Amino acid sequence: MEVNELIREAAKKLETPFLVLDIEQVKKNYIRLKNSMKKVDIFYAVKANSHIEILKALRDLGSSFDVASVGEIDKLLSIGVSPKRMSFGNPIKKEKDIEYAWKLGIEYFSVDSEMEVEKVARRAPGAKVYARIATSSNDSDWPLSGKFGTDIDHVISILKWANRNGLVPYGISFHVGSQSYNKYKWQEAILEASVVFNKLMKNGIELKMLNLGGGIPVKHTKPIPTVEEIGEVVDESIQEYLWKHKDLMIITEPGRSMVGDAGILVSKVILKSRKGAKQWVYLDVGVFHGLMETIENFQYEIQVEGKSYDKTGVFTLAGPTCDSVDTIYEDILLPADIDYEDIVYFINAGAYTVEYGSSFNGIEPPKVYTIDELKELIK
Amino acid sequence: MEVNELIREAAKKLETPFLVLDIEQVKKNYIRLKNSMKKVDIFYAVKANSHIEILKALRDLGSSFDVASVGEIDKLLSIGVSPKRMSFGNPIKKEKDIEYAWKLGIEYFSVDSEMEVEKVARRAPGAKVYARIATSSNDSDWPLSGKFGTDIDHVISILKWANRNGLVPYGISFHVGSQSYNKYKWQEAILEASVVFNKLMKNGIELKMLNLGGGIPVKHTKPIPTVEEIGEVVDESIQEYLWKHKDLMIITEPGRSMVGDAGILVSKVILKSRKGAKQWVYLDVGVFHGLMETIENFQYEIQVEGKSYDKTGVFTLAGPTCDSVDTIYEDILLPADIDYEDIVYFINAGAYTVEYGSSFNGIEPPKVYTIDELKELIK
Repeated sequence: MEVNELIREAAKKLETPFLVLDIEQVKKNYIRLKNSMKKVDIFYAVKANSHIEILKALRDLGSSFDVASVGEIDKLLSIGVSPKRMSFGNPIKKEKDIEYAWKLGIEYFSVDSEMEVEKVARRAPGAKVYARIATSSNDSDWPLSGKFGTDIDHVISILKWANRNGLVPYGISFHVGSQSYNKYKWQEAILEASVVFNKLMKNGIELKMLNLGGGIPVKHTKPIPTVEEIGEVVDESIQEYLWKHKDLMIITEPGRSMVGDAGILVSKVILKSRKGAKQWVYLDVGVFHGLMETIENFQYEIQVEGKSYDKTGVFTLAGPTCDSVDTIYEDILLPADIDYEDIVYFINAGAYTVEYGSSFNGIEPPKVYTIDELKELIK
Repeated sequence: MEVNELIREAAKKLETPFLVLDIEQVKKNYIRLKNSMKKVDIFYAVKANSHIEILKALRDLGSSFDVASVGEIDKLLSIGVSPKRMSFGNPIKKEKDIEYAWKLGIEYFSVDSEMEVEKVARRAPGAKVYARIATSSNDSDWPLSGKFGTDIDHVISILKWANRNGLVPYGISFHVGSQSYNKYKWQEAILEASVVFNKLMKNGIELKMLNLGGGIPVKHTKPIPTVEEIGEVVDESIQEYLWKHKDLMIITEPGRSMVGDAGILVSKVILKSRKGAKQWVYLDVGVFHGLMETIENFQYEIQVEGKSYDKTGVFTLAGPTCDSVDTIYEDILLPADIDYEDIVYFINAGAYTVEYGSSFNGIEPPKVYTIDELKELIK
């Protein structure tokens, strides 16, 4: 998503910081992914951005949803999404939440441990469970392995355990890591999944679902594979490694790739100073109010209204709170003439920004406006 | 603050996670600090915990308040705290917030750059400003220097600049770093402050205020100096280095030391699993819902109800969200027999916990109960 005249005008007229959401871009992303992976059902990962207009747009396009909590389930129910279109994708669930989901009619539950199998068996007897393989995701910004997923042998024994506990061992999921840069990671993961499929088939257990997880990247500062390229790799890998398994349900759980490039975070310089050899620029938005991912070194493209990168300087960019952790980037290049009250755009900030927002230090998270709302506001 | 029978009973009866606040402990901390530093005015740093009962208790004891935003100012106004008892201690302020504060009657403003001086001069002409020295705070858990404060020569020129811009150059602040372990850091900082006092006196500028900042530590896992010991060092250092400057207003901005040991975060194990060689324990509270400081490696004392540390195991402790950053501690020692549904207490978690809480992943931050509320709830 590009900074356009509407956003420029809004940045001048409205109080910053705010996040602009382009719902049309979300729709485009959905349709493009759907076209790139025709046989794949899309379960949007609500955690990336749970703004109600995003959820409604995806609902209307026929998307399903990957949920992680009762809070997310209830938000979807409130806009009439059927539980049949939800998958409880968090392998760390409270038992009472499992029961709540099951009684509503949610069918699919994620597991990656024996204990989680037992919890699901107690509260959702007969549910379909899928187990998560931990992939080696060193080509991604967030290697999610470790906390989630486990090795192939363990996945096999978990699904057998599910079977013995009266659940339906239904499928395999993996996650190549959020913001993955290597399309062949999907091939590797599908190959690994096929090992589980085949071994369990020999044990009389026929899995029905392959869950590709998320991880499709959004363009920030590094080059990325396209959705179409990833779709091709996925399609070929399924044909090559899973041809024995007919009528597979194939799903994916995109988060960042649905909404990342549908948002721009608009902020303002509220202070510039020099301390010793260092130049500091302070914004009215920071780590605790939307830019949490920067402390894990996520690199946003930053644009400064009216200023160019032809001449740059080295700056430390920080947020407005009385907290040293609220330092966005140390020693980054910004236009040399960046100055007080300049408008600063964080491009492609639609995912995992306001969702992490707190009210720390008495400062509210950025307001969120859709393009339509913005048009109304500055009319 | 210790886990007592009331908290134990509440942990069994109420839904976790929740934070218990002992307001009596806050009062004790205030009185103890006041007694240790008799000539010092206490400005409670609201950001540490802005719970309304804490603010009311401190108001009633005569505390003043260090505020960082309009949000914090408004919260204090709502309980009748006079703006005369507030200091705007954030050196990164929005201009309109400066004006708002000044018009309300707030007198003291923090600055650590020329530009901030100019902003205050425009919106709060005639205000009293204090400038912050960056101290070398390598004996603390959070060395706050870098983002805040600047060197001695710069502080002098900033205060001269304030003078030329029609402000009252009023004082010097420093901050030895949050959770400081070395009491002589206060001595060093007061010595540095005295250099500024003396140099400015030669220029005809008489400073009136010494702001000791915060940094008084709370007992977690490392040994700490007591408030009394720190008070003694402060007292001696002021007599030794600042004796020329009569009728000094001396203030301190405690946050963690007022509320840190007045809170216990109560959570539950919702999953235990083994992955490869690693054992994982997942709680119903995590980094995004109260334990943010653990990702900066803050070490809480952790107790597990009914389990002892006589036999320990190495575990990775993680929160409940679908986010790998939500990993509290890697490879820590916990009771070897920690298990599903065990109650886990984070001791001395009254500061900087729920204040950072978000609603990420559809999960609400922990509820907060005072001891009195808890008694009512489990009656």
